[in-house]
Amino acid sequence: MARVRVAACQINTVVGDLDGNARRILDSLGEAERGGADLAVFPELTVTGYPPEDLLDRPAFIVDNQAVFAAIAAATGTCAAVVGYVDTDATGRLVNAAALCVGGEVLGTYHKRLLPNYGVFDEQRWFAPGEGPTVRYLVAGVPVGVTICEDMWFAGGPMADQSGAGARLLVNLNASPYSRGRRAQRLAVLGQRVAETGCPIVYVNQVGGQDELVFDGASLVIDAGGTVVAAAHQFAEEVMLVDLEVDDAGAGDGGARADGSGLVVVSGGPRQAGTAPIVNRSATELGEDEEVYEALVLGTRDYLRKNDFSDAVIGLSGGIDSSLVAAIAVDALGPEHVHGVAMPSRYSSGGSVTDAAALAANLGVDLAMVSIEDAHRAFSVTLAPLLGAEPTGLTDENLQSRIRGVLLMALSNANGWIVLTTGNKSEMATGYSTLYGDSAGGFAVIKDVPKTLVYALCRYRNERAGSEVIPDTVLTKAPSAELRPDQRDDESLPPYDVLDPVVAGYVEGDRSAEDLIAAGYDREAVARVIGLVDRAEYKRRQMPPGVRISAKAFGKDRRMPITNHYRVPVPATPASSPAPNGEARAVV
Amino acid sequence: MARVRVAACQINTVVGDLDGNARRILDSLGEAERGGADLAVFPELTVTGYPPEDLLDRPAFIVDNQAVFAAIAAATGTCAAVVGYVDTDATGRLVNAAALCVGGEVLGTYHKRLLPNYGVFDEQRWFAPGEGPTVRYLVAGVPVGVTICEDMWFAGGPMADQSGAGARLLVNLNASPYSRGRRAQRLAVLGQRVAETGCPIVYVNQVGGQDELVFDGASLVIDAGGTVVAAAHQFAEEVMLVDLEVDDAGAGDGGARADGSGLVVVSGGPRQAGTAPIVNRSATELGEDEEVYEALVLGTRDYLRKNDFSDAVIGLSGGIDSSLVAAIAVDALGPEHVHGVAMPSRYSSGGSVTDAAALAANLGVDLAMVSIEDAHRAFSVTLAPLLGAEPTGLTDENLQSRIRGVLLMALSNANGWIVLTTGNKSEMATGYSTLYGDSAGGFAVIKDVPKTLVYALCRYRNERAGSEVIPDTVLTKAPSAELRPDQRDDESLPPYDVLDPVVAGYVEGDRSAEDLIAAGYDREAVARVIGLVDRAEYKRRQMPPGVRISAKAFGKDRRMPITNHYRVPVPATPASSPAPNGEARAVV
Repeated sequence: MARVRVAACQINTVVGDLDGNARRILDSLGEAERGGADLAVFPELTVTGYPPEDLLDRPAFIVDNQAVFAAIAAATGTCAAVVGYVDTDATGRLVNAAALCVGGEVLGTYHKRLLPNYGVFDEQRWFAPGEGPTVRYLVAGVPVGVTICEDMWFAGGPMADQSGAGARLLVNLNASPYSRGRRAQRLAVLGQRVAETGCPIVYVNQVGGQDELVFDGASLVIDAGGTVVAAAHQFAEEVMLVDLEVDDAGAGDGGARADGSGLVVVSGGPRQAGTAPIVNRSATELGEDEEVYEALVLGTRDYLRKNDFSDAVIGLSGGIDSSLVAAIAVDALGPEHVHGVAMPSRYSSGGSVTDAAALAANLGVDLAMVSIEDAHRAFSVTLAPLLGAEPTGLTDENLQSRIRGVLLMALSNANGWIVLTTGNKSEMATGYSTLYGDSAGGFAVIKDVPKTLVYALCRYRNERAGSEVIPDTVLTKAPSAELRPDQRDDESLPPYDVLDPVVAGYVEGDRSAEDLIAAGYDREAVARVIGLVDRAEYKRRQMPPGVRISAKAFGKDRRMPITNHYRVPVPATPASSPAPNGEARAVV
Repeated sequence: MARVRVAACQINTVVGDLDGNARRILDSLGEAERGGADLAVFPELTVTGYPPEDLLDRPAFIVDNQAVFAAIAAATGTCAAVVGYVDTDATGRLVNAAALCVGGEVLGTYHKRLLPNYGVFDEQRWFAPGEGPTVRYLVAGVPVGVTICEDMWFAGGPMADQSGAGARLLVNLNASPYSRGRRAQRLAVLGQRVAETGCPIVYVNQVGGQDELVFDGASLVIDAGGTVVAAAHQFAEEVMLVDLEVDDAGAGDGGARADGSGLVVVSGGPRQAGTAPIVNRSATELGEDEEVYEALVLGTRDYLRKNDFSDAVIGLSGGIDSSLVAAIAVDALGPEHVHGVAMPSRYSSGGSVTDAAALAANLGVDLAMVSIEDAHRAFSVTLAPLLGAEPTGLTDENLQSRIRGVLLMALSNANGWIVLTTGNKSEMATGYSTLYGDSAGGFAVIKDVPKTLVYALCRYRNERAGSEVIPDTVLTKAPSAELRPDQRDDESLPPYDVLDPVVAGYVEGDRSAEDLIAAGYDREAVARVIGLVDRAEYKRRQMPPGVRISAKAFGKDRRMPITNHYRVPVPATPASSPAPNGEARAVV
């Protein structure tokens, strides 16, 4: 057995920030080296940040990324660093690469073999697949094999090839976006790879928000017995050091192999075991709601920070959605950087304003109050000759919502604040929102959070505080858009405890109506929800980005045509035909 | 030589409209059969329409498409039909398929081998590549090989394989989106394939608009000598019949081949040459501006028609952009379905209103007139306590634009009209627009048309009419957003004859600043334009879809991160640093 000290460098890169990412890499590498690490492993495409998307189509960007990578390699010292960047293969095609650098030199480069091209991933758009087998490295007497992200998800894949060719320690560079339950999935698959290869695995994931994606880090080190020997925090940067005992049998065979690959000696001898081994630095696992909440906080904080916004403004209606968004914004930015605006109308209940005020006081954010009545009157009078009468019905409801959007955007323009919108996934799914109204803004914090989870997250936030941050009255009153007298969400939509699982089944699960009905959901509700989801695609296309927390968000996960005449067949029953219709709040 | 009569069935399918597409297919097939055709060729994925995108992730959709395909096959008669649909391969993976059906039976199925995964295409997201060689068919004594779209673009590819395996006539099913110059590119590549294979080619493309894409048809039949013997219209449905003389040497060898594929006899004998051959039905080629104009008309008409809108409303400012959009809308929908609204402000010139009125009169559309002054006043007074003073500068400019957006959307909600927005590509590129203001609407007709081309298209439209449809004063006055006194676009942006080619080079060509400067563009203008384009990504993400006419539109062609710290290096010169800044109209 040989002992090797690895550093999982779980850093928060920024897409396109080549120089900044180089600094982040070298700072972490310095920390790893000062901690005595033999091997520092970084996330996938460390130099460019992930995903660089169509920046990869620019030849100059590729050249710049290579130059920055070369500078990083030149700055390496005694600790070997495995760094991700964009390279070209022998035929000039782009590859998703990871190089091992030490002592100022590049000792070898691996090209990612399995390129995900589903869900949020488009890697076959830019990259050619690598062709194994590849160089392995002798680090502290242990033969190390490098793989990248998708490479580790399949049995009989690149990891098996690496161990089959002699690697005894596998490292895996990742840019694996967060979704609920993803950490457990990774852990299960890593356990399968350990069992398959007999090798310990160092799994390093990036952390931080990038547009709609949030990467949770949660890097893992698993020993050859399948035990997690170190687990990094979710949603925080960390240089996690750990000592691994690795079977080094056969490691002395440093020459060329029959398959043409070599074993590159990085540091020949096994590590001196003089110091006590570093063990058991595992972070506490987050609770289910806590994990989602932290994802939303980091996703929001990073979107603002990386896009140069210091402050956010939120329309506080006294409802549960805006209350949750305000709490997240405060946790992301600090209360002094969050600004609430209450914009009551003639239809607002008194409780709405007092609830908004109580929330603002609890969170410590300022609250401006402005009636939309004057603008509402002016528009009504202006529109009357065009419409033949003052606006009514949906036209009038949407008008009020859009007046609020205009007011918030004026505050945004005048103060440089970003508007955070407050629509949840149940609303995104059904189109229960007003284009250019409540959906107007720069970032849609909870757009992937269904309403039932909104409630759970509010309760979690109150429990964490040990006090009523989000007022109880907000949690207990019936949801309403308050755009007409005595309006209630459940007049327009099925109850949320039916709506949310049907949306999850249809959107995230691609399940048929037949299947959902067979699973016990009400036939009429299923038909109605599917009809609403299908018809709202055009609205979703104009929504701001927001944090993805599910396995399939409305975003680049789900590329549905707007123009789409496919009508999901709903099995007939003896009851009358359901006739799904478009009476959700805003039809544009 | 054998004579075969082919029908290029250039039809306008609708994505997801399985039953409707089946009707369209069978109607055209009937027409082909009545015309005596031996072989009718349809566009790619005829049954589903193209591109079905993530509908393909729904198992029920695949099953439904297969059932509809089976019904089409069962309904075929004496004319063989090559129809595209979604199938599964032996391992259950989805394939992009084309089957030959005749006499109620499916005689064989080809699976597309080359799957485009760049630009607007994501085919590797859903499909597994087919593996040649495949069945060839003996039609009227001629061995026919089937390929699909991308399969024909590469030398030594599937077409060469088909001819190498004995095919003497090649058919190619397409869903090839229009862009400027694309028809000539296709023709050049088809010529190369004819020269490579010695086979005539029947190239059939779909026609019609689908979200941001417009398919131009322009199907082509080329003989073995490389001569175009039939060319279908662009932007119109057509069943184009033509007789081809095909070398049938060796065609009698109908048995199994060494490579395991077979030659399926569809109709054994050569066609009786009793009737005069059908030749020379080629459509007149469109002029350069005419072609773009017709693309915009069809793209707009189909977006509305396929999404159940009969009428459109347009804010007419008296400027050139809204004038062009109104002309296109009238040509797409008829004047009685287009509604103009002039919404002057305190800063509008008198000429703006008279120009809008003249345009409306020339086009025969109704024009409503409504001042935004009352709403502007009401917002100013409402906002004053929040901002410390009434809005000024960009805040006030955006406010006016958003008031107009709210008014148009109220008309949309009340009347069921879609709002057509009027921003051009120069504005999309630089962010010279107001989110939720002039960009609010359902379809952005000219979002891919640079300003200099807007002028050319207006002149084309006037020339075609032989009269001043778009008033001369509109064509000659300096462009202005009229959101502050004496505002002119060229105070905020480089002149359009510099801006447009720099945008084209940077966006469509992915050229570096260095390269653009070396090509002769002003260093400061290049730096400024690139900075504006990079910073406007968040705005473009919330824009409505519009017709793609260039090789790279802002849409699914160009997937740039919003959060992006890459700053394009601009080579230094002795002059002072340019400091590109964000002073375009709307900063949100």
